Amino acid sequence: MNTSSAVLSRPTTACSARINGRRLWDALMSLAGIGATPKGGVCRLALSDLDKQGRDLVVQWAEDANCTVRIDTVGNIFMRRAGHDNNLPPVMTGSHIDTQPTGGKFDGNYGVLAGLEVIRTLNDHNIQTIAPIEVVVWTNEEGSRFVPVMMGSGVFAGAFSLEHVLAQTDREGYSVGSELQRIGYAGSAPCAQFPINTYFEAHIEQGPILEATDTTIGVVTAALGQRWYDVIVTGMEAHAGPTPMELRKDALLAASRLIETVNRIALGHAPHARGTVGWIDAFPNSRNVIPGTVKLSVDLRAANDDVLSLMDDELKAACGALNDAGQVSVALEQVVYFPPQPFHNEQVAAVRDAADQLGLSGMDIVSGAGHDAVYLARVAPTAMIFIPCKDGISHNEIEDAAPEHIEAGCNVLLLAMLTRAGIAQS
Amino acid sequence: MNTSSAVLSRPTTACSARINGRRLWDALMSLAGIGATPKGGVCRLALSDLDKQGRDLVVQWAEDANCTVRIDTVGNIFMRRAGHDNNLPPVMTGSHIDTQPTGGKFDGNYGVLAGLEVIRTLNDHNIQTIAPIEVVVWTNEEGSRFVPVMMGSGVFAGAFSLEHVLAQTDREGYSVGSELQRIGYAGSAPCAQFPINTYFEAHIEQGPILEATDTTIGVVTAALGQRWYDVIVTGMEAHAGPTPMELRKDALLAASRLIETVNRIALGHAPHARGTVGWIDAFPNSRNVIPGTVKLSVDLRAANDDVLSLMDDELKAACGALNDAGQVSVALEQVVYFPPQPFHNEQVAAVRDAADQLGLSGMDIVSGAGHDAVYLARVAPTAMIFIPCKDGISHNEIEDAAPEHIEAGCNVLLLAMLTRAGIAQS
Repeated sequence: MNTSSAVLSRPTTACSARINGRRLWDALMSLAGIGATPKGGVCRLALSDLDKQGRDLVVQWAEDANCTVRIDTVGNIFMRRAGHDNNLPPVMTGSHIDTQPTGGKFDGNYGVLAGLEVIRTLNDHNIQTIAPIEVVVWTNEEGSRFVPVMMGSGVFAGAFSLEHVLAQTDREGYSVGSELQRIGYAGSAPCAQFPINTYFEAHIEQGPILEATDTTIGVVTAALGQRWYDVIVTGMEAHAGPTPMELRKDALLAASRLIETVNRIALGHAPHARGTVGWIDAFPNSRNVIPGTVKLSVDLRAANDDVLSLMDDELKAACGALNDAGQVSVALEQVVYFPPQPFHNEQVAAVRDAADQLGLSGMDIVSGAGHDAVYLARVAPTAMIFIPCKDGISHNEIEDAAPEHIEAGCNVLLLAMLTRAGIAQS
Repeated sequence: MNTSSAVLSRPTTACSARINGRRLWDALMSLAGIGATPKGGVCRLALSDLDKQGRDLVVQWAEDANCTVRIDTVGNIFMRRAGHDNNLPPVMTGSHIDTQPTGGKFDGNYGVLAGLEVIRTLNDHNIQTIAPIEVVVWTNEEGSRFVPVMMGSGVFAGAFSLEHVLAQTDREGYSVGSELQRIGYAGSAPCAQFPINTYFEAHIEQGPILEATDTTIGVVTAALGQRWYDVIVTGMEAHAGPTPMELRKDALLAASRLIETVNRIALGHAPHARGTVGWIDAFPNSRNVIPGTVKLSVDLRAANDDVLSLMDDELKAACGALNDAGQVSVALEQVVYFPPQPFHNEQVAAVRDAADQLGLSGMDIVSGAGHDAVYLARVAPTAMIFIPCKDGISHNEIEDAAPEHIEAGCNVLLLAMLTRAGIAQS
């Protein structure tokens, strides 16, 4: 007998419970105190002492909210609120609490504490869900101290092996495995997928679209695919004075043309394509020497894998044309590939419906950034909820979000989770 | 009575003396042993212990060649071979022996040792010149350890004051004044211009033109004027993924357009104009962040000051257009200005004639680089002699020059100096 069939769920529309925005805000501020920077941001690198303090605080809060907590072998923290039928796959939410070195208060932290606030709200209203609710803190999403990024969710979804990530070291030579042991988060639960009803993740947009369109809720339908490249342009360094223009092999001039081309490639696949050169290093980087070598990154993104492949073709063609022109040689190497990740229709609809129900403005949006949800979508029906962030700024100490948006996104999460988990008759 | 009128000079064409190419080459190699680097270059920074060793060796050689040596207050070394009439202004040559940190064997050193070889040759052939001959080692031409560049010749020509340069410090805080004292080259002769018949300077081209045209002697008619700028492009850093192309304020994309423009400005004023962006720094220089700030240098050069001003106008207009486009702001600051420096007709003709007399291929050429001769030209009739260097490479440990070119350039120097100094009847 299916235990869940023994209870009646009432429609979520009947649920008038709302989260406590002030409590959520205060939790965000308390967590932001651990690793607070003078400029108002947070520096709490994965598996550092400060990460341990942040984890301990979240775990304490979860235990205070009557959750059971288990830690898996890569340090992911699963905080479960029992449902009426605990044999059912949980409705899960979460994100990460590690930050960039000059990170903000909201990236990641919001997704975790919004999940905690959902649990606290359910407790306040004595709401028993049919399926259990689970809030997860994924280890090392940022990848600032240890690569790869999205490490905990990646192992969980089978993107890479536990052994591989435990052996990764930071710049000082400390390994993920030893640092997990040191901070007490090398858990015993296996890090492997298990049946999950739904994974939701609430997150600040980290972009400017919601703010620019005065929209409160981004209904995230997919995440862009990504191809990252390393490029090395090799010319010949020479004195800036004595070398005539026509005899130059100027690696920086060629790199500039490539930067322009990357921009043009993205514009050619509007609206969802992106093309970015984020880092550039010129050698010898001296003001009166023509640069002989320039290294740069290229980051191409698209919502559709065919488009991303086309963009890849166009980038290769541009590098080939520079090579053929004969002044410089261009070496292009792809170093990262994430396929585009569509989210799941029913789950996306649950987010959209929740926003409607709450009378919040909403729009479909595609996530340009990577998130733990992108890996989770490989093993569970997944959707994301975006809220605006000030000026679209993230990965920055001045990252900011409005309390009313923080609250609105969490209410959407509450209702969407209840839709998926069902409410047991009280 | 003018003492010089008491002697007859014979035409230089009658002089069959030639320098000793092997001796000159060996002197270059001996001096290159002081501060030799594993890659075959030289690191002998101005006023270092190695600079002292190099100076001591050159002074010893000059004294062995019966020169009188005096040191001025900025450490310039004047090595004089008496003429028949020592009241006449000397015919001078020279250059510098300090090097870049990864410098070569020939830059500067060639000009000094070619001068010494001229004196040794005159001694070998018992040739008495009418005017005295003077070989100079100018202090700190490179500017690697202490700025400004061309320090010794600059003080001599009145470009900056002795007090100013003596107070300059290196990165460790040692001053020019104290380092001159320490190495024993804080001389007592005043560093100030005095009447000079002619200043010649022999130098490797440091560019590719002579090699590309298979020409042995560059008859240097002028030095390009230079304007150097610091540019700061300010946009807004943002996540490469979530930020749509049309909402970006990409400082690196704008900087790329400026780099292209600098190249186009120079091409528009062919053949002598140059435009170079040699250094670039992007912030935060992270592969998935749109650069918010880019700093870069611009180096514009032209043979004619009107052209240089036009180029300056065009650069300012390009920066203004980027500003007006509204995505980024561009701040442009000129940090260096050297006016174009034409050399002197009679002196240039002496070089050209000497090359002809020796049956060497020669061509008029404009120096794109700065040299001590550029300052000397402000206070004395000046010309320069260029010889090819391998692949046009200089300021590099692999800098190289062919022994036959080293010898040819020195023979041109010998004949040109004799033309100007005159030969006393034996």
